[in-house]
Amino acid sequence: MNKLKVGIIGAGRIGQVHAKSITYHIPQAEILAVSDIYVEGAKKLAEELGIPNYYEDYHEILNNPEIDAVLVCSSTDTHADITIEAAKAGKHIFCEKPVDLTVDKIKAVIDAVNKAGVKLQIGFNRRYDHNFAQIKDLANKGKIGNLQTIKITSRDPEPPPISYVKVSGGIFLDMTVHDFDMARFIGGEVEEVYVNAAVLVNPVIGEAGDVDTALVSLKFKNGAIGVIDNCRRAAYGYDQRLEVFGSNGQASASNDTPTNVEFIDENGAVTDKPLYFFLERYMESFTKEMNEFIDCVLNDKETKTTVYDGLEALRMGLAAKKSLAEHRPVKLSEIEQ
Amino acid sequence: MNKLKVGIIGAGRIGQVHAKSITYHIPQAEILAVSDIYVEGAKKLAEELGIPNYYEDYHEILNNPEIDAVLVCSSTDTHADITIEAAKAGKHIFCEKPVDLTVDKIKAVIDAVNKAGVKLQIGFNRRYDHNFAQIKDLANKGKIGNLQTIKITSRDPEPPPISYVKVSGGIFLDMTVHDFDMARFIGGEVEEVYVNAAVLVNPVIGEAGDVDTALVSLKFKNGAIGVIDNCRRAAYGYDQRLEVFGSNGQASASNDTPTNVEFIDENGAVTDKPLYFFLERYMESFTKEMNEFIDCVLNDKETKTTVYDGLEALRMGLAAKKSLAEHRPVKLSEIEQ
Amino acid sequence: MNKLKVGIIGAGRIGQVHAKSITYHIPQAEILAVSDIYVEGAKKLAEELGIPNYYEDYHEILNNPEIDAVLVCSSTDTHADITIEAAKAGKHIFCEKPVDLTVDKIKAVIDAVNKAGVKLQIGFNRRYDHNFAQIKDLANKGKIGNLQTIKITSRDPEPPPISYVKVSGGIFLDMTVHDFDMARFIGGEVEEVYVNAAVLVNPVIGEAGDVDTALVSLKFKNGAIGVIDNCRRAAYGYDQRLEVFGSNGQASASNDTPTNVEFIDENGAVTDKPLYFFLERYMESFTKEMNEFIDCVLNDKETKTTVYDGLEALRMGLAAKKSLAEHRPVKLSEIEQ
Amino acid sequence: MNKLKVGIIGAGRIGQVHAKSITYHIPQAEILAVSDIYVEGAKKLAEELGIPNYYEDYHEILNNPEIDAVLVCSSTDTHADITIEAAKAGKHIFCEKPVDLTVDKIKAVIDAVNKAGVKLQIGFNRRYDHNFAQIKDLANKGKIGNLQTIKITSRDPEPPPISYVKVSGGIFLDMTVHDFDMARFIGGEVEEVYVNAAVLVNPVIGEAGDVDTALVSLKFKNGAIGVIDNCRRAAYGYDQRLEVFGSNGQASASNDTPTNVEFIDENGAVTDKPLYFFLERYMESFTKEMNEFIDCVLNDKETKTTVYDGLEALRMGLAAKKSLAEHRPVKLSEIEQ
Repeated sequence: MNKLKVGIIGAGRIGQVHAKSITYHIPQAEILAVSDIYVEGAKKLAEELGIPNYYEDYHEILNNPEIDAVLVCSSTDTHADITIEAAKAGKHIFCEKPVDLTVDKIKAVIDAVNKAGVKLQIGFNRRYDHNFAQIKDLANKGKIGNLQTIKITSRDPEPPPISYVKVSGGIFLDMTVHDFDMARFIGGEVEEVYVNAAVLVNPVIGEAGDVDTALVSLKFKNGAIGVIDNCRRAAYGYDQRLEVFGSNGQASASNDTPTNVEFIDENGAVTDKPLYFFLERYMESFTKEMNEFIDCVLNDKETKTTVYDGLEALRMGLAAKKSLAEHRPVKLSEIEQ
Repeated sequence: MNKLKVGIIGAGRIGQVHAKSITYHIPQAEILAVSDIYVEGAKKLAEELGIPNYYEDYHEILNNPEIDAVLVCSSTDTHADITIEAAKAGKHIFCEKPVDLTVDKIKAVIDAVNKAGVKLQIGFNRRYDHNFAQIKDLANKGKIGNLQTIKITSRDPEPPPISYVKVSGGIFLDMTVHDFDMARFIGGEVEEVYVNAAVLVNPVIGEAGDVDTALVSLKFKNGAIGVIDNCRRAAYGYDQRLEVFGSNGQASASNDTPTNVEFIDENGAVTDKPLYFFLERYMESFTKEMNEFIDCVLNDKETKTTVYDGLEALRMGLAAKKSLAEHRPVKLSEIEQ
Repeated sequence: MNKLKVGIIGAGRIGQVHAKSITYHIPQAEILAVSDIYVEGAKKLAEELGIPNYYEDYHEILNNPEIDAVLVCSSTDTHADITIEAAKAGKHIFCEKPVDLTVDKIKAVIDAVNKAGVKLQIGFNRRYDHNFAQIKDLANKGKIGNLQTIKITSRDPEPPPISYVKVSGGIFLDMTVHDFDMARFIGGEVEEVYVNAAVLVNPVIGEAGDVDTALVSLKFKNGAIGVIDNCRRAAYGYDQRLEVFGSNGQASASNDTPTNVEFIDENGAVTDKPLYFFLERYMESFTKEMNEFIDCVLNDKETKTTVYDGLEALRMGLAAKKSLAEHRPVKLSEIEQ
Repeated sequence: MNKLKVGIIGAGRIGQVHAKSITYHIPQAEILAVSDIYVEGAKKLAEELGIPNYYEDYHEILNNPEIDAVLVCSSTDTHADITIEAAKAGKHIFCEKPVDLTVDKIKAVIDAVNKAGVKLQIGFNRRYDHNFAQIKDLANKGKIGNLQTIKITSRDPEPPPISYVKVSGGIFLDMTVHDFDMARFIGGEVEEVYVNAAVLVNPVIGEAGDVDTALVSLKFKNGAIGVIDNCRRAAYGYDQRLEVFGSNGQASASNDTPTNVEFIDENGAVTDKPLYFFLERYMESFTKEMNEFIDCVLNDKETKTTVYDGLEALRMGLAAKKSLAEHRPVKLSEIEQ
């Protein structure tokens, strides 16, 4: 078999996840090199997985003519620039989300990729989750009927460090962005966003100009409505659920748990909390998205999770920020396209 | 035992429910008379339950000095006037919701009741439901912690006749009113309402000036936020759920079902749809609210579900209508108090 | 309507249950009299429910020509004799289980009833339970297919007083008898019984010659197999479940609970224990069986839960005792018919 | 790190599972060689996983002084002989179950292993399943209390080929053997076995001298009782559950499913069937058992799942066969030790 040759830029948490997916579960691809500005991290990962090369400078990956595709797993502020460089170098690209926090930069990425004629897939892994993919499948088959209401529950077990909150673009760009994509994945394009939010977890988050608890109302272009329930901290762990109501029925996904054991005594019946945290909960989905990317490149298929999806999720996030600031519903058309 | 003597005004569906609760389950009370403008209905109910008197004119009940308390179960447009008359006649009153569709009328009721010094309980029966009462109890005990987010799901199996929609005041006054009360029951006073709604079930409802699918965002005075999910038609039946999130944990109530049987074959595992409809789902709660009313009168306790609750639920409904009309969040303070 | 006139013999716990079912839920019948050797109990029940007559001596009920049917709710040792007397008096009879602890006595009952041509229904109320009746219905419709394995879980929350264990005939006659009837209800006639049992709850039960924890294996005549899981004490309450496996699928009933509320915090997700105890768990089934009895008498239908069912459940119990004593499988044909 | 050098004897289904566990998930070990009498299978596996050597003759593995440990994944009839040879060659051994179908052979294995002083772990992977391990943990912690009743449900989705049934030793040696081990894992040593069984799935199985549906009653030495529910074919798939009742409470494990999605429409609420089949259901447990074996060898710990466990599970199977043949309870002491 002619294996796809891959380079990984960024050996942090998510870079390691993708490296292991390819090494252990995707025989159609092999990793030729990994880079990280913290080169010890690249070295460690290379040794653990038997990757033949590791570098400090990602240009060594871009300049390697043997490498067909790169995974951009570096810090968010570098995603767009590296992706543009990679496109110019003729590499197919898997880029972690968010692509960027500005519409302009994402449009520059789109231009570069189109010009180079390379493939680009964005890391909205939750589309590949077993539960959510099954709901999408039920919707596609018409089992749910015409969509009425979409309800997404997405609550983290702990807030990120306040230093992260200050640079991430805030809850709507760093956390809800996944849910915005899920909303579009299930319900299609969104027309309007309204935010009802508060600071209930930690006042320091409020002092940093952000909120930590939010209900984001959505109007879809097809007429359906939706709501996303976010919180930076759920006492019981990582809460990831979805309910979709339509004219024919309702599909819902409850949380995954470590076991299916129930213990019952005089105090009641106890079952597990949800899986903690996203690496456990979504591990399988990371492998599936990578598998799809490799397949698209090897077999010259269109990628399904595109930079346009990244752009629209960003625009929803920007609309949410505007809604919060101006305390009114905001149309997506008010946000730069 | 000195039984409380009760008269029932209105022998329709809900009048029958209360009559049976008292006859079968509340030995502390007995029904002396029932009235209905459709006197055959009153006669039939009297015969079935062994009630000694039935009338066409409810004044015969109000004028009977033996009767201590009346249940106002007539049509909505008569609730306020009959309640005021009953108060003047010195009767304790259980009045079905909604008390009225205007703030002025409800304030007149409050005045009359205060002047007469009689007790008045409003029929927000869902407060007495086993599931929701248990969640309230968990909240009271501090198990949930500081409230963050309240999510109410309340979907009817079928829309009411369009003739009803035209006079009921619309979905927010005839259907969501229960959920507004539930929101206040769990989360306390509400400061602001925002409506995201659509006509997705039946365009005739839209032509009548109403919506049939809605997500109502709430801001509570204590800082918590909430959302009510309503639909006039759920293909799978009557969907009545509640989720309450707080700093310590989450309490949720799933639907009641006819049985706990699961059947599994090669097509999957099948369980029951929710109980259909409110008479089945909430039957126990109707008995419990009536029991509390009888107890309050007999033992001179304050009623817990008051006309003030009726007023505030109405004001939330009016705020929701205004939000829909003006496409913006509406503060409760904008609504006449 | 020509109401059926009923007399109740025995005003204890189960007599009260049936009296309330008829008074509150079965308008086709009325109770003319209640008797109890503890006459104060009869008086109290009569006053509470407005029953016009109460007696110490049940013969006053049997001798009342106005009474069409009697409910035999007295102590077990009197069931057979009173039923025979009632049959001779021409009354239709509802008799609580067990009819008797000996085959001979039950056969005498059968003779008397046949000779008198009156109807006799036995109080195996669990056949009328919503969960188990639905499983029976699934079986009848062929959804489960050819029966393979039937598993009954039936665990009490607390053992009865040791004085009761000594006279009840032991666990297989006072407790498992319900499960033997359920096994026959679902699986048909039984051919062989094998008992695997122990004293694990309370050694005093063992000293009284009984066991408190048992697994009773069953072979059905149709070739299917089954097992009954009994325990005198389940720490978590009253455990009443059923699983039926067939060539097409499996139907199972889980426990009923007071609410459908889940509370989840850092310690896990907690739901309710089962309903405690049989009066709560099976209340609805008591009303349904009584309704069927009244209907059979009024409309001259065959009763469906017959003295033959009582006889066979007894014989299974006797076979179980023999299996335990002789430590071997025992055929039903070894037990007097 | 000094990696453990492993050879795998047998490149069939289970050999591949272990090879992938080590390659992908156990960095502490590496596979030096794989053998299979069907050498093409060994070659294919070696190429897929980058194993440097493959052989037809397993002696090349035993003779390789670099190899520390071997996995015996060949056909059942060769397990004992190869294990004895491997012990003589000084290799640590992981041997798939069953070790053998005779007590004598297993005792010869025990002797050889003891003499050689090598480690031997048996492949009872279900002990490492997330659900069952959690129940064991609850039992160890005393949460369940003194054991009363253990119920194991173990139903296959399809019967094996009839050719396999004829040589496997029958259902109690090829299928129930897992459940016998689970019973001992949870409940300790067993004293007596009684079989209630039938041919309900396929008469050809009966003609081959076996049964296909069974309830196996167990008496444990500690006084607890138990039952195993087996069937060669469950219409709804692979049914693997466990319930453990004790003086303090009950722990139960329900089936694992592909997703946690529920779809509800007018026909009811549908959820997934169990995971199909053991490679999906127990995949994680195969990795965990292998991890434990590697750890025991590397760190000179005692293996926890021993050949003695294999012997006792076999003896329970032989007792079950005897019970079926002689239609009586059979004590383990009647079976050769």
